[in-house]
Formats: sequence, structure tokens, C-alpha cells
Amino acid sequence: MASPTSADVRPAPVRADGRAPDQLRPVRITRGWLDSAEGSVLVEFGATRVLCAASFTDGVPRWKKGSGEGWVTAEYAMLPRATNTRSDRESVKGRVGGRTHEISRLIGRSLRAIIDVAALGENTIVLDCDVLQADGGTRTAAITGAYVALADAVAWGRRHGHITGGRQVLTDSVSAVSVGIVDGVPVLDLPYVEDVRAGTDMNVVVTGSGTFVEVQGTAEHGAFDRAELDALLDLAVAGNAELAQVQRAALAEELAR
Amino acid sequence: MASPTSADVRPAPVRADGRAPDQLRPVRITRGWLDSAEGSVLVEFGATRVLCAASFTDGVPRWKKGSGEGWVTAEYAMLPRATNTRSDRESVKGRVGGRTHEISRLIGRSLRAIIDVAALGENTIVLDCDVLQADGGTRTAAITGAYVALADAVAWGRRHGHITGGRQVLTDSVSAVSVGIVDGVPVLDLPYVEDVRAGTDMNVVVTGSGTFVEVQGTAEHGAFDRAELDALLDLAVAGNAELAQVQRAALAEELAR
Amino acid sequence: MASPTSADVRPAPVRADGRAPDQLRPVRITRGWLDSAEGSVLVEFGATRVLCAASFTDGVPRWKKGSGEGWVTAEYAMLPRATNTRSDRESVKGRVGGRTHEISRLIGRSLRAIIDVAALGENTIVLDCDVLQADGGTRTAAITGAYVALADAVAWGRRHGHITGGRQVLTDSVSAVSVGIVDGVPVLDLPYVEDVRAGTDMNVVVTGSGTFVEVQGTAEHGAFDRAELDALLDLAVAGNAELAQVQRAALAEELAR
Amino acid sequence: MASPTSADVRPAPVRADGRAPDQLRPVRITRGWLDSAEGSVLVEFGATRVLCAASFTDGVPRWKKGSGEGWVTAEYAMLPRATNTRSDRESVKGRVGGRTHEISRLIGRSLRAIIDVAALGENTIVLDCDVLQADGGTRTAAITGAYVALADAVAWGRRHGHITGGRQVLTDSVSAVSVGIVDGVPVLDLPYVEDVRAGTDMNVVVTGSGTFVEVQGTAEHGAFDRAELDALLDLAVAGNAELAQVQRAALAEELAR
Amino acid sequence: MASPTSADVRPAPVRADGRAPDQLRPVRITRGWLDSAEGSVLVEFGATRVLCAASFTDGVPRWKKGSGEGWVTAEYAMLPRATNTRSDRESVKGRVGGRTHEISRLIGRSLRAIIDVAALGENTIVLDCDVLQADGGTRTAAITGAYVALADAVAWGRRHGHITGGRQVLTDSVSAVSVGIVDGVPVLDLPYVEDVRAGTDMNVVVTGSGTFVEVQGTAEHGAFDRAELDALLDLAVAGNAELAQVQRAALAEELAR
Amino acid sequence: MASPTSADVRPAPVRADGRAPDQLRPVRITRGWLDSAEGSVLVEFGATRVLCAASFTDGVPRWKKGSGEGWVTAEYAMLPRATNTRSDRESVKGRVGGRTHEISRLIGRSLRAIIDVAALGENTIVLDCDVLQADGGTRTAAITGAYVALADAVAWGRRHGHITGGRQVLTDSVSAVSVGIVDGVPVLDLPYVEDVRAGTDMNVVVTGSGTFVEVQGTAEHGAFDRAELDALLDLAVAGNAELAQVQRAALAEELAR
Repeated sequence: MASPTSADVRPAPVRADGRAPDQLRPVRITRGWLDSAEGSVLVEFGATRVLCAASFTDGVPRWKKGSGEGWVTAEYAMLPRATNTRSDRESVKGRVGGRTHEISRLIGRSLRAIIDVAALGENTIVLDCDVLQADGGTRTAAITGAYVALADAVAWGRRHGHITGGRQVLTDSVSAVSVGIVDGVPVLDLPYVEDVRAGTDMNVVVTGSGTFVEVQGTAEHGAFDRAELDALLDLAVAGNAELAQVQRAALAEELAR
Repeated sequence: MASPTSADVRPAPVRADGRAPDQLRPVRITRGWLDSAEGSVLVEFGATRVLCAASFTDGVPRWKKGSGEGWVTAEYAMLPRATNTRSDRESVKGRVGGRTHEISRLIGRSLRAIIDVAALGENTIVLDCDVLQADGGTRTAAITGAYVALADAVAWGRRHGHITGGRQVLTDSVSAVSVGIVDGVPVLDLPYVEDVRAGTDMNVVVTGSGTFVEVQGTAEHGAFDRAELDALLDLAVAGNAELAQVQRAALAEELAR
Repeated sequence: MASPTSADVRPAPVRADGRAPDQLRPVRITRGWLDSAEGSVLVEFGATRVLCAASFTDGVPRWKKGSGEGWVTAEYAMLPRATNTRSDRESVKGRVGGRTHEISRLIGRSLRAIIDVAALGENTIVLDCDVLQADGGTRTAAITGAYVALADAVAWGRRHGHITGGRQVLTDSVSAVSVGIVDGVPVLDLPYVEDVRAGTDMNVVVTGSGTFVEVQGTAEHGAFDRAELDALLDLAVAGNAELAQVQRAALAEELAR
Repeated sequence: MASPTSADVRPAPVRADGRAPDQLRPVRITRGWLDSAEGSVLVEFGATRVLCAASFTDGVPRWKKGSGEGWVTAEYAMLPRATNTRSDRESVKGRVGGRTHEISRLIGRSLRAIIDVAALGENTIVLDCDVLQADGGTRTAAITGAYVALADAVAWGRRHGHITGGRQVLTDSVSAVSVGIVDGVPVLDLPYVEDVRAGTDMNVVVTGSGTFVEVQGTAEHGAFDRAELDALLDLAVAGNAELAQVQRAALAEELAR
Repeated sequence: MASPTSADVRPAPVRADGRAPDQLRPVRITRGWLDSAEGSVLVEFGATRVLCAASFTDGVPRWKKGSGEGWVTAEYAMLPRATNTRSDRESVKGRVGGRTHEISRLIGRSLRAIIDVAALGENTIVLDCDVLQADGGTRTAAITGAYVALADAVAWGRRHGHITGGRQVLTDSVSAVSVGIVDGVPVLDLPYVEDVRAGTDMNVVVTGSGTFVEVQGTAEHGAFDRAELDALLDLAVAGNAELAQVQRAALAEELAR
Repeated sequence: MASPTSADVRPAPVRADGRAPDQLRPVRITRGWLDSAEGSVLVEFGATRVLCAASFTDGVPRWKKGSGEGWVTAEYAMLPRATNTRSDRESVKGRVGGRTHEISRLIGRSLRAIIDVAALGENTIVLDCDVLQADGGTRTAAITGAYVALADAVAWGRRHGHITGGRQVLTDSVSAVSVGIVDGVPVLDLPYVEDVRAGTDMNVVVTGSGTFVEVQGTAEHGAFDRAELDALLDLAVAGNAELAQVQRAALAEELAR
């Protein structure tokens, strides 16, 4: 998709990296990046690089004990030099910042939307999403990669007898992409240079079957109207359909280890 | 609005408190609730009660010094017994939770969307939104009340000569309301009992002129489709129009002190 | 009391708010201010306004388990804009300050002095005293209001069968008031403007039957002698007798909910 | 004092350590215990042993800058094995407890009551009071020893030209002692075994000239009446007169270094 | 080195991965792994994988201002799933652990040993060493990789005119390796499985010219004698000579960006 | 030892305190310094003074339960005015610094090297080493004193029936000393003034039978060669032999309590 058709006589797209407005950056998903994690993925959206590790453990937090249900949660963090200028470590500052908390919670909710916790049984899967390099869209890359790591961890759990029964644990796939309005044009999958210029910025989490899990739109400068909102949602749904395809392709490959 | 027309032959609304699906809870805004704050409002959405205090100070944070621009920020918190069962204090736990951070940031962004920071000049206004009693919609009540406290603090700043020049500091008003899908029906302004049952939950921040500042929708159980999203946005826009009217009425009154 | 008699030929009292030296500020106790707390009181000593919420829970802290005895504790805090200028939140600073700790402990000890923990049984009552507006005497208002909220929580516990047996849980009432020496004159119930000028400042916690629970006197500028100490104690005992009367009156009313 | 007169025909005192009710434990003040501190004292009240170090620095905290006045503050702490059973370190717990804060503030206020901050000039003296062994009365021993360390630090400041001008920096001396009612008998200077049995417990800080700086009385079990309060104050005043004498004697000695 | 000579008639080496006792694991150094850091290296010692990022900034910490000298410091951390089982994040725990602190300090000291801070001028270089996968020797890999990232950052500083003058900033190279006694045999560069079985464990930091910067030897079970210490030091010196060669080879390559 | 023989025609030693290069400072070990600790020692290396308290408790940390083995751990800290200028308290800063952690871990490891945890049984001994005055070598004094306190706590445990069975709990003694190269001369037991000038600094922990437990050498300015390392190790071994003798002498005395 996304390549202008011959009928498209507008001037060439003006995005700094030459992409069309509705075009994703190159997306790469490398499974099995870690030797010992039950699932692990290095996901790349252009220069954005996130390591997603899924840790499978027997048992659930105390407040879920005896429920027969499992639990999936996530923690997001950024290495100090993932960005252009170094940030202080949250471990050194002694507290996790608001943005970090917010994104960790978003990733966790997104994954729980496509998990059947009863089918998972009393097991816990923790997704660690550590941003090694940040160039915009780190939370959407994290969700997209975490789903694949989660799928591998679920498969591991079944292979090792921790998950039993005939029900599907994963009821769907899930991915996420950012959209925004830059210089008046709705664009898909914003790198950092576009992100800082965007008047409106939206992260949209969508299932493989095309329904919404999260819609988080923010007017950075001035508010946006319903038509703009609709255009952004259209872009995001199409972009997520492509991401779901990339996820399926990645999971179809044989995992070496 | 909100009262069923004669053409509406559906059975009476089934909300526990007898409201129609598109009806707000009783909203009350009491200005000047504190003696010394530059702006202060006790805002009530039904049983939800939030004290919003605006503190005006000369000067800006270091990273804004010399910019000629002001700064508006917000902190949200809940008293331990605002809820049905007591929660531990975040001061005692020694850390501010993710949810608290997230809502504080949301309130701050919402207010900054309708502030002209250059017109404010190098002054800072901090909005403290403390939930005294929580019955759903605390963040939306906080934004709605905080706008009124902010307007009073801006007026105070002008009256006392801290804000000068002919430009408007407030470029618009802003309010917020929650919407959600409960038992398949899209409803407006959810109290706690509805909130816990909602399959989808959305907080929508809208300006007085009807454009969007924030759209934050979350599927709590299962995902939602485009038609549901559209219905929720319609409800939220109409509800916010009513709230803007309540804000205008509150600000039209003479403030005793 | 407190109104100058005809025999009093001294000049009119010089307190800024026109009170006689031995006169309390207007005291108001509003019960049932919160819908769900087992006891709740908004207490006002003039412009000082404290919300006292009593939370009743089955069970006791681990170190009391199996003792057959209950536990009563308190937490005091101040909203950031309770005062003339905004203070930073202790939750954001990540630590509870010394003054906060000290007052929380004082309130807890004061209430435990009039509780028969054996009669309470293995139940815990936590008193949250949050200062909404501070104009001097916040700790004494908190103790005075907390006693009433505690009484309501004890009644709730008995009504709901958590407290059984014929013994009285509350062995007495308790209240507190500040006294101080301002410009050489011993005065009762100091507002903020007097508090900062007082050479000596004392908080006195007294039971309904007139015995002392706490006497905390501090020389702020210079030390005080035995005669001054005696005069302050006399004022405090009389002031607390009035407060005990206000508490009795408040508890005599029918509580709506 | 303290030795029963021949007229005293009551039975021998019943205190575990054989003291009369109005008798202090052996008090020892060792000056110059540290090589480099500007003032340092090891103070012993019986088995209670507190190391008081006074640190003199040029300059004052920011909020005192340009005032021409100095500042005196104190920090109290207890070694983990000062007590019968080991306590966790506050540094390891990551927060200073309420009791520690409260006592640090008490010591600071007590010393500031006898300091002329204008005569001190813009200098700061910090008193560190570390309890090496605790057997009751640690805060009163700390105040009593800290005064002597403070006097040495003031002398140091004058000797080294940091304090100039003819005015006295120390306007008086200050000491403290605990009193309490044990088995119905008012007693002076309680060791741990008496402290835990005391129905009422009071710490009284008194100047060398016999006026009160702090009176902190607490009913541990049941309240106390005015007669008991008076008896305790009498005991405390007499005990502090003895302590002032011990302080004078200690300061009269030549300090080796 | 390291290959048994024909004269060596001992049985084949018994290390789990088939290495000779004096043989390093495969060492790989990938420069320029991050797009924006002034120096960055992914260093691998077998399965141990550490990302070393060097951040160059103008200016020095306050305590070095005006000294004419620069500063080099390091922070070490481990991703939660770098290990076989997931560890909690230090940012979430709110404190940096002792081991982390200790290793960060070791890396910083090791690099400062070969830096001429006067030649660096008033610039700061921070080395972030984040362990992506841990299989023993993470601190030694971090030092070895950090040196190369540091060299690239120094070159960047010179290229961009932040470092001037003719003096060499790097006075030598530096690398590190672990040695230990496993089943009585001194071995080089221990992976995790050997590390847990080692009776003695030593990390040795050596310059390119063969002198010692740090020697940190620890008896894990039982103590070690002088002969064992000498054997370990010999192994470490030889291993570091190989590492210095790998570093030189890496730095000799053209850096793409 | 350590006194220059007549054959020694070198010029008089140049150490500021007149010691020969291989001479310890006066070492004093005072047992039973605390009344209630199961073992306690005030250890002095010249002006360095460390209070070592051993606390014996039944039971072990959770991760050792059921192992039949005991646990020994240590915590090191420094009083704020142990040094020439006052340091802030770690309890007030809210975090334990890296240096503190590092030394605590070193002391713990050193003591565990000479403990037979199986012979100790499921008991825990915590060593608190608090530096009252610091003049270099605080960690080595702490280890040397802590061993003696540990020995007393082990004896206490046996006397009170907590340790049973015929096996020795202490398999050896352990002590520590610092060595360094000052102005090119290897010297033993460095006070603060030498420590800051030392080019190389090493702490060596040695058992009573002369084997190494820890060797921690650091080049502060420039690196050191093998000959220097050997000279330092020789000095350290001889110094520790003297310390072991002092420990034996101290333990041979009758302990009053």
C-alpha cells in the first residue's frame, strides 16, 4: 500500500524521509533476541529500536490467587542515551516518572485486551519493553513487538505444560501506531522530527480484526475538529492492518531456539 | 436537553440514578471556596466533589526563564477516604502512583490548550485538584472546575498588575466529561457503579467552541468498533456543551471576595 | 463565658478579630460530610477547616493480632493551598515531613487516651484529618473533630455488629485547644496572625471530665515562667470545657444518613 | 538535694536502681570526645550514652541570607544496636521516622531558645546527637549534652574570628530531664524499665535561670490531673537545676585540645 | 596463545564450552551501534552483551568548575531480563542496589586511570553501560567496551572543536577480564556457570601497557594462597593483552557514520 | 616488628606520625562496650574509632529457611561528624550511598569466609559497624573489630543454647589492613593524610592462618606494576599477622559482663 497511484498528481510527499503520508517506516521484528527469555523480540520502526522480553512465571499476584485466572503486565523504560541528549536514569533519580508509568500501563492494558486470562490459567507474563534507541513512536513499537514476544511466551508455556486445556489464550493480535497532523497534513507513524512539530498527536491501538483497544489523541497546539479526528483514525486503522500482517509473518517463521 | 421527547417510545432509562443516557449528573460549581487562593472552586458532579485551587506566582520554572511566556501546571490527588474503602496516602508510601501522575498531566495539558502563554507573561499558575469524595468522573470534574479556578486566577493576576497588555490570556474555555458503553448502551457522565461495569470508557476534553483537546478511550473488556466510538464522541460533545454553559453561568456571578 | 462583665473596666480587647482573650473562635462541627466513611466531620475553628474521616475495618495490625484489643490511629495532612502561599505536596517530595508526623502521632495518642481498646475488640479505626484551610490551630481542630468522627465510627461498628459486649468503647470525650502569650497577654485559640507573634505557644488536650491528656508548651521567643504556665493551663481547661459542650451538642443531633 | 532528710520517715525508695524519687542517675559529661568537631561531648545519664557533635560553618541557609542572623539546628539519631533488640537503620529504610524527626526538632528549638542569633552572626551550628546506648531519657541527655557542645563551638567561633562583637551569643544555659508517674509516685529521670511502666511521661526543658523552654507531657495510660502535673513540674525544675550545675562544672574545666 | 602445545599431554580441557583454561570467549566489539551517541559500542564476551554509550557534554560538575580539567564517569545497569530469571527494576524499587553502585564506580575509576583530564579540558563524558544479556563477566565486558566508546567520544570532541591543544587525552588503553579458580584450576573469563562454582573470583583491570589499574579478588568459599593469587594475575595479564589487541583492531576500522 | 634495626642505615622514616613504613598505628580493641549487644567492640586504629555491635537472633532470612545453615551480614555507616567536615546523613538523604553499600558488602563477605554456616545453625548474626571517628582505614578497622564482636556473639549463642553440636563455628580469624604507595614508598595502615596522597591504595583481608580473603587494589593516580603489587601484598600479610595477634590477646581476656 501507500505508494501514490499514477492518478495521484499531487507533488511528491514532503516528509523528511521521503515517505508518503500514509506510509509506515520500515518495520523489522527479530524474534529470539535473548537466549533465556520465554519470548523476546527486537522491534524496529525505522530508527526506533525496542527490546521486548516476555517472562513467564507460575503463579499470579496475591490479589488474583485462587481466581483460576492469569495476569499480564508490562514495564516500559528508556536507556539514558536512547535519545539525542542523555537523560538521567530513573533508578538514580529514585522514582519512575509519570510518562514511564503512563506508557507501562498502556502497554499492559493493550495486551490484556487480547488475552483470555482464564485460558492462561494461574500464570503471569511480564513484558519488559526497553527502548534502546528512540526516534518517535516508542510506545507503539513496544506494543507491536510485545505482542509477538507474548505470543512466543504463551507458546513456551504450552510447550512446557504450564498452560493446558483446549482454549486459545490469545483471542486476537494487537498492534499500535501513531498518527498526527503535521503542517496540516494527517500522517502515519511519526519520527521524532515530525512528532515535535505535530499539532495533534494520536496513538491508536487496534486488534488484528480491526477494532479499537485504545484511542489517545492530544492536541499539542490548538484543538482539532471531528473531520481531523476521523482522518487520523482512518490512517491508524490502515497502518495497524499492515502491522498485523508484519506480526503474522514474523510469527510464521521457525524460531531457531 | 436530555429529556426523552414524546417520539421516544423506548422504555424509561435504566440507569440506577434514573438519568437518561445522555443526561449529566447535577453539576455545581462553587467559586471562592478558599479564602486565600487566587482562584478556588468546589466542583460537584453528583456525589463526586473536587476542590480546585489555583495558585498564582510571579516567575516561571527555570527552563522557561527569559522566554516571555508563562506556565500552567496541575496536580491531582485523592484524599484517602474519598472512596468507599480507605486507600493508603501516596505521601506515606513515598511515591506518587502512575494513575495520579497520568491524571495530573492530563489536567495540565487540557488547561494549556486554552491558555495563551505569551499573554500570561512570565507568571506561573498551579492548579491543585484534590478529590474530597469520589463517585466516578473525578478527572473530568477536576478539569471542568479547574478551568473556572484558572479564570479567577487570571482575573486576579490582571487586577493586581501581574498580567498586562491587551491580549486575552484565555483563548477559549475547556471542560471534560466521561462517556462509556454500559450493557451495550452509550451513556454520559458515569458514576462509580457504571464505571466498573463499562465495557468501554472514554474521557473527552472539549473546548467551549466544540473542538477536541483530548480523546482518551479504553476498551476495558473487549474492543470497540467505529460506530460505538462515533456514538460516544457525539454524547461527549453534547455533554461538554452543557458543561461550558454551567461554567459561563458560574463565572457570570459576582464573586463575594 | 468570655464576655467582659460590667466590672471589667480594662480597655476593649485588642485581638484583631475582636475576641476577648478567653474567647474561642466560632466552632462548627458538621457530621456526615462524606457519604461512605463510617464517621466523618467537617470541623471549623474560625477559618480553619479540617475534614476528619474515620475508617472502620475488621482486624488489627499484625503486632496486635490475638490480643483481643483494637487499634486507633490517625494521619494528618494539609492540602497544598490550605495556607496563604502554596506548599509542595509531601507525596511529590516523596517523604512525610517531621511536622506532619508529629501531629499525626499527637492525634492518635489523644484519641487512644479515651478508647477502651479491649471493648473495641479486634477492630481498627483510622482517622484521616485533612486540613482544607489553615488559619492556626489545625491540630487542635483536628483532635476536636476527630473525636466526633470516632464516636460515629464506634456507633457504626456497634450498629453493624462488629463491636459487641456491654462495655463502653469511649471512656470519655477529648478535645484540644491552643493557648499562647501574645504581647504579654495569655489568649485562647490563636489564629495564624496571633500564632506567629506568640512568645509562648501551647497545645493542651483535655478530656471531657477535665483531666490532661497532652500538654505541649513551647517558648518561641524567650522562656516562660511558672505563673505564665499556670495562666495558660487555666485558659486551656476552660476552653476545652466549651469544646466538650460543642461536641456533645453535635453528637446529640440526629445524623441524616 | 535528693538525699532523704532525717525527717523523711517514709520507707526506703522502691526504684529498681535504688534511687530516691527525686534523684538523678549519675550524669557524666566528657568534652572534646572527637578530635575535629568544633564542639563535642559524650554525655551519659546512667547507661544512656549520647555523642553530641557541634559543627560550625560560615554562612546560613538561603532563607536566612542577608539577615545578619545565624542558625542553630540539630539532628538526632540512634545506632541500630543502641537498644536491647536491634532496629533497622533509617538510612536503609530510606526514610527518617516520625519519632526521630520530632526529637531532632525538639533539640533544635531548645537550643535556639538560649541563642542570640544576631550575636552569632551569619554562621550555622549543627548539633548531631547520636545515641550510642539507650536506656531511657535519650532526648533529655541529648539536649543537656548538646548545650555543652554548642558552648564549645561558640567559643571556637570566637577564638577563630568567625564571631565578633561584644554581645553574648549564649543568653543562658539549657538542660532537660524526664519525669513521670510510676506506680502512682512522681519520679525523676526515668530509665527504660520505668519509662515503659509510667502512666504519665513528661520531658521538661528548662534554662539555667529556671524558666521553661518546653513542657511536653503525655498520658500513656489514662489522663493526669492538675496536682500530678504540678508535682512533675516541681521535680523537673529541681532536676534541671542540678543538671545546670553539672554543665557549669564541665565547662569550667580546661579543654585539653 | 591458549592452544595447548603438543608437549601438553594433560587431558583435553574440561570447561563446559570446550575452552582451554587460558582462553577467552569470542569477543566482538561493534562500534557506532547507536545513531546519536558521541561514542557507542555493543560489546560481546560470548553470550554476555553490553551496550556502552558515551555522552559528551560541554562543562563539568560544579566541584570541577574552573579547574581546567574534565570529568569521566560511568553508570552500569542491567535490563530486568538480562538474566535467566527476571529481576525487579531498580527504578521501580526506587533505589540503586549496592552491586550496581559498586560496578558503576569501578568502571568510572578504570577509565579515569587512562584519561588526562587536563587534556580533556572542561568537558564531561558519561559512559552508560547497560547489560542486555548477562552470562558472567558483565563488568569486565563493560570496561572493555566502554574504553572503545570513550575513544570514539574523545575523537568526536576533537573533531567538533570541544577538545583543543596538542596533548593526548587518552594516555593508554584499558580493558578488564575475570579470572577464577574452578575445581582447583585457574581459568580465564568465566561464564555464569563457572562463576557460581568458582572458589575464588577476581576481576583485573589492566592498561594496554600491562600495568594494573584494579585488582579485586574475593574468596567465595575458603581463602586463597599467594601461589593461587600469582597464577590468577598471570592469566589476567595475558587475557587483557589479547583484549587490548581486539580493542586496537576495532578502533582501526573506519566508522561508517 | 617494625622498629628499624641498627643495620637499617636509611634516613629516619618520613611518615607524618613518625612511623616506619611497615608499622601499624596503635591498635586498641575494647570488648563489651555496649551493655546489651551479644558482642560489641570499640576498635581503634590510631584516631580511627569504630563501634562494632553483633546482634544474634534466632532464625534466618526467608531464602535460607530450612537449609540448616545460619547467616552473617554487616552494615557499615559513618556518623555525620566522624570526618573533618560534616557530611549529610544518609537517612536524611533517603538513600544509602555507593561507598557505604560497597563497604557493608565487603565486611559481610570477609566474615562469612571464616564462618561455618552449618555449624552456626539457623541463626543470624548482624554486625553493625558505625564509624565514630574517621582517620583512614575505617573499613579495615571495622573488619578487624567485627571479627572480635562476632566471636563474642558466637560464644553468647553457645552459652545460651542457640548453637549446639561439637563443630567449630569460626574456622579461622580474619583481619584487614590498608597498604598504599605514598611518594613511591609502600606503607602500611594509612591515616587520612597519607590516603589522599597515595598513588595506589589497597585493602587486604587475610585470615589468621595467612591466606587471602579479599584483595582490593586501586590505582588512584597512574597504574602500578607487578613489583609494587608484590611489595604491598608482603606488607599487608605482615600487618595482618600483627592484627591477628592483637585479636587473640583481646579475646583471651575475661569479659566483665
